[in-house]
Amino acid sequence: MKYIYAFAEGNKDMRDLMGGKGANLAEMTGMGLPVPPGFTITTETCNHYLETKDFPVGFFEELDEKLDELQHTMKKTFGSRQNPLLVSVRSGARVSMPGMMDTILNLGLNDETVEGLIEKTNNPRFSFDSYRRFVTMYGNVVLGIAHDHFEEALEAAKKAKSVSEDTELETEDLKKLVKVLKGIVLHHSGKPFPEDPREQLLGAIASVFHSWNSKRAITYRNLNGIPHNMGTAVNVQSMVFGNMGEDSGTGVAFTRNPATGDKEFFGEFLVNAQGEDVVAGIRTPQKISELRDRMPEMYDQLHKVQKTLEDHYRDMQDIEFTIEHGVLFMLQTRNGKRTARAAVKVAVDMVVEGLITKHEALQRIDPNQLNALLHPSIDPAAKKEVLARGLPASPGAAVGKIVFTADDAYRLAEDGEKVILVRKETSPEDIHGMHAAQGILTSTGGMTSHAAVVARGMGKPCIAGCKEAHVDDKIKTLEIHGQVFGEGDVITLDGATGEVMRGAMPTVEPELTGEFDELMSWADEVRKLKIRTNADTPFDAQVARRLGAEGIGLCRTEHMFFDEDRIMFVRQMILSTDEKSRKRALDKLEPIQCEDFKGIFKVMNGFPVTIRLLDPPLHEFLPNTEGKIKAVAQEMGVDYGELQKMVDALHELNPMMGHRGCRLGITYPEIYEMQARAILEAAKSATKDGIKVIVEIEIPLVGHVNELKVLRELVEKVAATMGALDFDWKVGTMIELPRACVTADQIARHADFFSFGTNDLTQMTFGLSRDDAGTFLPYYTEHNILPDNPTETIDQEGVGQLMRMAVKLGRSVKPDLEIGICGEHGGEPRSVMFCHEIGLNYVSCSPYRVPVARLAAAQAAL
Amino acid sequence: MKYIYAFAEGNKDMRDLMGGKGANLAEMTGMGLPVPPGFTITTETCNHYLETKDFPVGFFEELDEKLDELQHTMKKTFGSRQNPLLVSVRSGARVSMPGMMDTILNLGLNDETVEGLIEKTNNPRFSFDSYRRFVTMYGNVVLGIAHDHFEEALEAAKKAKSVSEDTELETEDLKKLVKVLKGIVLHHSGKPFPEDPREQLLGAIASVFHSWNSKRAITYRNLNGIPHNMGTAVNVQSMVFGNMGEDSGTGVAFTRNPATGDKEFFGEFLVNAQGEDVVAGIRTPQKISELRDRMPEMYDQLHKVQKTLEDHYRDMQDIEFTIEHGVLFMLQTRNGKRTARAAVKVAVDMVVEGLITKHEALQRIDPNQLNALLHPSIDPAAKKEVLARGLPASPGAAVGKIVFTADDAYRLAEDGEKVILVRKETSPEDIHGMHAAQGILTSTGGMTSHAAVVARGMGKPCIAGCKEAHVDDKIKTLEIHGQVFGEGDVITLDGATGEVMRGAMPTVEPELTGEFDELMSWADEVRKLKIRTNADTPFDAQVARRLGAEGIGLCRTEHMFFDEDRIMFVRQMILSTDEKSRKRALDKLEPIQCEDFKGIFKVMNGFPVTIRLLDPPLHEFLPNTEGKIKAVAQEMGVDYGELQKMVDALHELNPMMGHRGCRLGITYPEIYEMQARAILEAAKSATKDGIKVIVEIEIPLVGHVNELKVLRELVEKVAATMGALDFDWKVGTMIELPRACVTADQIARHADFFSFGTNDLTQMTFGLSRDDAGTFLPYYTEHNILPDNPTETIDQEGVGQLMRMAVKLGRSVKPDLEIGICGEHGGEPRSVMFCHEIGLNYVSCSPYRVPVARLAAAQAAL
Repeated sequence: MKYIYAFAEGNKDMRDLMGGKGANLAEMTGMGLPVPPGFTITTETCNHYLETKDFPVGFFEELDEKLDELQHTMKKTFGSRQNPLLVSVRSGARVSMPGMMDTILNLGLNDETVEGLIEKTNNPRFSFDSYRRFVTMYGNVVLGIAHDHFEEALEAAKKAKSVSEDTELETEDLKKLVKVLKGIVLHHSGKPFPEDPREQLLGAIASVFHSWNSKRAITYRNLNGIPHNMGTAVNVQSMVFGNMGEDSGTGVAFTRNPATGDKEFFGEFLVNAQGEDVVAGIRTPQKISELRDRMPEMYDQLHKVQKTLEDHYRDMQDIEFTIEHGVLFMLQTRNGKRTARAAVKVAVDMVVEGLITKHEALQRIDPNQLNALLHPSIDPAAKKEVLARGLPASPGAAVGKIVFTADDAYRLAEDGEKVILVRKETSPEDIHGMHAAQGILTSTGGMTSHAAVVARGMGKPCIAGCKEAHVDDKIKTLEIHGQVFGEGDVITLDGATGEVMRGAMPTVEPELTGEFDELMSWADEVRKLKIRTNADTPFDAQVARRLGAEGIGLCRTEHMFFDEDRIMFVRQMILSTDEKSRKRALDKLEPIQCEDFKGIFKVMNGFPVTIRLLDPPLHEFLPNTEGKIKAVAQEMGVDYGELQKMVDALHELNPMMGHRGCRLGITYPEIYEMQARAILEAAKSATKDGIKVIVEIEIPLVGHVNELKVLRELVEKVAATMGALDFDWKVGTMIELPRACVTADQIARHADFFSFGTNDLTQMTFGLSRDDAGTFLPYYTEHNILPDNPTETIDQEGVGQLMRMAVKLGRSVKPDLEIGICGEHGGEPRSVMFCHEIGLNYVSCSPYRVPVARLAAAQAAL
Repeated sequence: MKYIYAFAEGNKDMRDLMGGKGANLAEMTGMGLPVPPGFTITTETCNHYLETKDFPVGFFEELDEKLDELQHTMKKTFGSRQNPLLVSVRSGARVSMPGMMDTILNLGLNDETVEGLIEKTNNPRFSFDSYRRFVTMYGNVVLGIAHDHFEEALEAAKKAKSVSEDTELETEDLKKLVKVLKGIVLHHSGKPFPEDPREQLLGAIASVFHSWNSKRAITYRNLNGIPHNMGTAVNVQSMVFGNMGEDSGTGVAFTRNPATGDKEFFGEFLVNAQGEDVVAGIRTPQKISELRDRMPEMYDQLHKVQKTLEDHYRDMQDIEFTIEHGVLFMLQTRNGKRTARAAVKVAVDMVVEGLITKHEALQRIDPNQLNALLHPSIDPAAKKEVLARGLPASPGAAVGKIVFTADDAYRLAEDGEKVILVRKETSPEDIHGMHAAQGILTSTGGMTSHAAVVARGMGKPCIAGCKEAHVDDKIKTLEIHGQVFGEGDVITLDGATGEVMRGAMPTVEPELTGEFDELMSWADEVRKLKIRTNADTPFDAQVARRLGAEGIGLCRTEHMFFDEDRIMFVRQMILSTDEKSRKRALDKLEPIQCEDFKGIFKVMNGFPVTIRLLDPPLHEFLPNTEGKIKAVAQEMGVDYGELQKMVDALHELNPMMGHRGCRLGITYPEIYEMQARAILEAAKSATKDGIKVIVEIEIPLVGHVNELKVLRELVEKVAATMGALDFDWKVGTMIELPRACVTADQIARHADFFSFGTNDLTQMTFGLSRDDAGTFLPYYTEHNILPDNPTETIDQEGVGQLMRMAVKLGRSVKPDLEIGICGEHGGEPRSVMFCHEIGLNYVSCSPYRVPVARLAAAQAAL
């Protein structure tokens, strides 16, 4: 077993073993690009270490060998006073997890080698500044001492000297500071700061290994569906310095614009700085184009390198570089994160450029990312009061209440609030809050700051580096030009323009680009699954059609019941004590429902429309608090006590498993009769108007074949009273109970179609109520008890097995049985792939998810 | 296809076609016993008629042929004025459904034939009395005219003559009455009363067919698990008359005592009466032994016949006979319904007598019936205030509130009340109320009255013919010797003695007879399934051991939490906001739980004990109304608001699918740690005391293997801290979620045993909450949408399929995996059979169900 690979020994295909960063450093080395020499310790070594709490046998020998080689190449010696070798130690997992794990720079410095560095650089201030940074970083990251302690010492040093900037500290101050910092290390760790560079190195390597299991790394993996057993590699690389003066610098750049996808070399740099300064967003960097003026030769060289890299990798690259005394070094390349818009544009452009194929283009894009493209943006016609302008770090419109901490964001979002997370800058500890927020606003940091990178990855609107905004997270205020906003005040962000606006702005539908349509048309050529939508109104149906829906897979009739002009009739129906008065109320609802359906048929002209008959328990239509009951009683002119009694009578201990779905249809047949009549009447009338109607009447919550049989007969009885029906109509059922899955052969005999209701099926199969699972489900996914949240992606092992069974049993009776899915999983890419795999005919999802499903279905077919 | 069989053409094995009554009449005819000639129209004809609403082609020809034969045999002619043939028309299904369907007597009478009857009987009063009865019966049963109308006419006739008894009406009065009754028929049916006997006959046959689908018949079938598609046969039999004077009579009898099983000829008769008079309980009949004095010859003949029948059928017979002018006729024989006690005694006695084998004896008894034997009776030591004494119609003690109508009984029982149904007499319309009541008290009727027969069948205590009780169901009072009781007053019935007592009497355990033990020992020889019990206390465990339990299959630890001395600690635990104070509360619970377990181990010395860790959601341990919350807050010395907040925080929308079971164990590991420690500590201590402990620690509500894995590790970690454990202990899981069934192979890898929790499994599989299903489940079973209530008997098609899957998958990984069932189905005979069939190792049920399960398991094995 080989534990360590020199960069020169590896290549980009060794990602599993060397991690992404290591494999790419190796690849660049192989390409002859200027990469500071180094080596990579494998992910397997990490896993061994995490399992056994020790390095594997033979590891130290290999490490010594690689160190020797490195010293030889660099002509420097680790720990040498004369010519000391300094290295960086960085994590690098198979999948990029930016900022999630540990990095240590300047490793190798001690009281001896700092003198060598001074001699070599002839810059004592730089050398001691590097030293104090190293002690701080090592003390914090490797030895686990709180950063505050070191920060306090730095502040004290500045105070003692009555200066306010770090840069104002002089060599002697820094020298003293290093001593103080080492005192802090001794005090808090109980051991002196390790002077031996080899001990430093082993400590740093172990620390990177451990950081794989840090809380924030685990959270990140959970959020991004990354397995927990991959481990991280460790890259040990000789240091180059961007902070050696005005002929030095560091930067990050993209081969194309990661926000728009435009083909332009895009990025930022800082003169006389180390790489962490750019990423941390502490200083606001300059645009890469300005490098051309400051260091033209460097710019040309870099520009050539980036072109070479993009052509080589055949994808947009995200690169990091450092310039040391006018010499360019490449520190990283990887496929660049990009906005959805950019992803689509880059993929389509690259097909046009002949760089990749259509199929590759389709597989390049994470379907989930498309969401960002499809959400409304701010209505351009609306009058907007722009409070401030920042960097347009991640596009999209976000409206919400201000919160100042990630925890607040998380907590309020859990309560259903829409919030905007407002921070000076974000850090990896804020991930959960960023995830919970509608959008993120930071007052510092650039387009490649933590906030910007993470928000783009999440497809969340983000404005970064908004200097006009003054954030005080102690007293929780956001001050902009003298106006003070507090927690709970509503603002709007436009991540595409960088504008921060007062109040809640109206939003409009996204305009989709030509590239988007192009990509979607390629997806449509490839996919086998049909894509339908869940829509309850002509408006939603229209949106979905525009986004490519080929029919409605779920029209929930009860949503129509809640509208102001009809809820009264619904309540009258519920309060009816006999069939006659119930029918009277239903008679009033019928023409309204009929109109609803007709509107939908018109939009879906020629496409199938699945309409589910009433599903929720009746108490959902009644008020549930004393105040509301009183108000409704008054409005309806009924006795309060009577209404209260009805509310009490309808109360259920477990309403999800109560008197709902087809159980309502069976015990109150007049409700389903009305709905069936309204559907067929609407279809008849639409047909007369020249609309091509294909309607599927769907019976929900069928557990036993007899339920479907009885209700199918009911629908057919209604149909028989309606004269000629010159359109295509069917009767089928939701498959959403475990019992329906295991008896699907019986049910299929009476069903023209099946539609999996995976929301309820998941809940019943797990015995888990989504509404109540907040107390344990997050714990389950965080602690890897469940690999995924089954309410988000189909649990293929459990729920999926029941689905397979239902498909097999159903088709054993009717080989051509149409089967779809209409649970929320229908728009989730992994679930869509699964649906393709088990042979469904279509998936149905919310309108804005339709393109996601189209792409996922194409990827499934490829 | 043959539609009609003469009695002489059939035999007892033709029950499917001829119904029970017809087949037995045929058998008796074949045995040469005196049966009035007649024929049977098959069940298939009924089904054809019900399906097509018409008699099948060829039916009329066959009917005419059979009528001709009958006229020939009887030397009488249908419709003849000289010598008219009169017949009875009776239903007779494959399975006896006493009183559920229609009967018409004296058919063939009209204005002509009544004259013939007078000539032949020389008894004009009798003839017109028969005629008016026939018109009434036909008008009511066949033509569907309310009985009240006819009753009013009868009352008016009596009033006109100023008499109070029917018997005081003379020939002329009756003649006039017939005219009035026919007027009622014309008025209500719009058609004159049919004078043509053939028309009468066809109407009666059709009416019997229809009565198969009467509401009461459907209810009866649902209650008794009888399929709805069998149809009924119709028996047309020449009339014999028990009401021809003092040398005539009628009676019903049993070849053995149906209450005790004693070998004695047992029954009742009425002189000068028709059969319906005995069954309807209108006149109180004489004991059969008195027949010996009144008509010794008849008695001897009858006694011989009954002996012949019992020997022939090899079972206790229930017979009906009529004596017409000193000639004995047998009208029916069938296997007699009997109390559980009688069933056991008869079966065991018949083995001793050499009449049947042990295996036959085991199969003779409906396991459900044993329930009646096993329920407490009134404490003989208690001081009792006997209010009145009636006939001991069905043994057992019943305590409850008085209700006067079947509907009230049903409604209150639904609300969880225990009620006693008090009636003058019961009728088939009262079935649902009798089912719902704890016991039945009637003021009229004998040991073979409707109330008595039905109650015995149901295993319910019943006192019939309690003449001291005066029931007024209009004003809802029960008056006994001047004391008036109203609705809601509590009384106690002792069905074994016939005593009605004031208030709620204390009850004691049943004493089991030697015959019972004998039968159970035969069952134990045969069965393959082990029988365990669900018991949470040493007391219950002791009861179950005495009834033959071979271990505990489910010990619910939470039931122990509710006791007064510990609920406080449980609440302290729940209110703890940190782990430390939670542990403090748990520390107080631990020794108490430990003692509980030790007590159970002692009782179950050498038998396995499965202990389930905490299962219900925590809010079940907190008060749930404002008043109770205030009281508990005060008691605990905590702030009301704080407690209310905790109650609110723990509120769940669907608690059955919420934070419970192993989800509690995972999120609050200290609770399961405490329980595991208490169990192992108790086992250790009991072992030290010489007890043989076999303990199975059971993790509830596992849906994903990782849940079990994590909690198994937790238990093992606890065990590792406890030193040597010199007893047998295992860790396993409940299988109660559909997901657990379909992933049982994975789960089995970490489980030492499985135990099906079919209560929850049924609810999840159907998506049906037992607590909420009252609004539709009764409708479902009544309307045959579900063949059975799946919460009562395992739904073999759905839930059962998941169970089969779990057994197969589990044993594919561990061939010897111990698998049991602990849901309430574990004591239900059909479910026990199913468990045997799918290869479970044991069933576990409530203590009093243990003998039921033992017998059912034996029957399954046979």
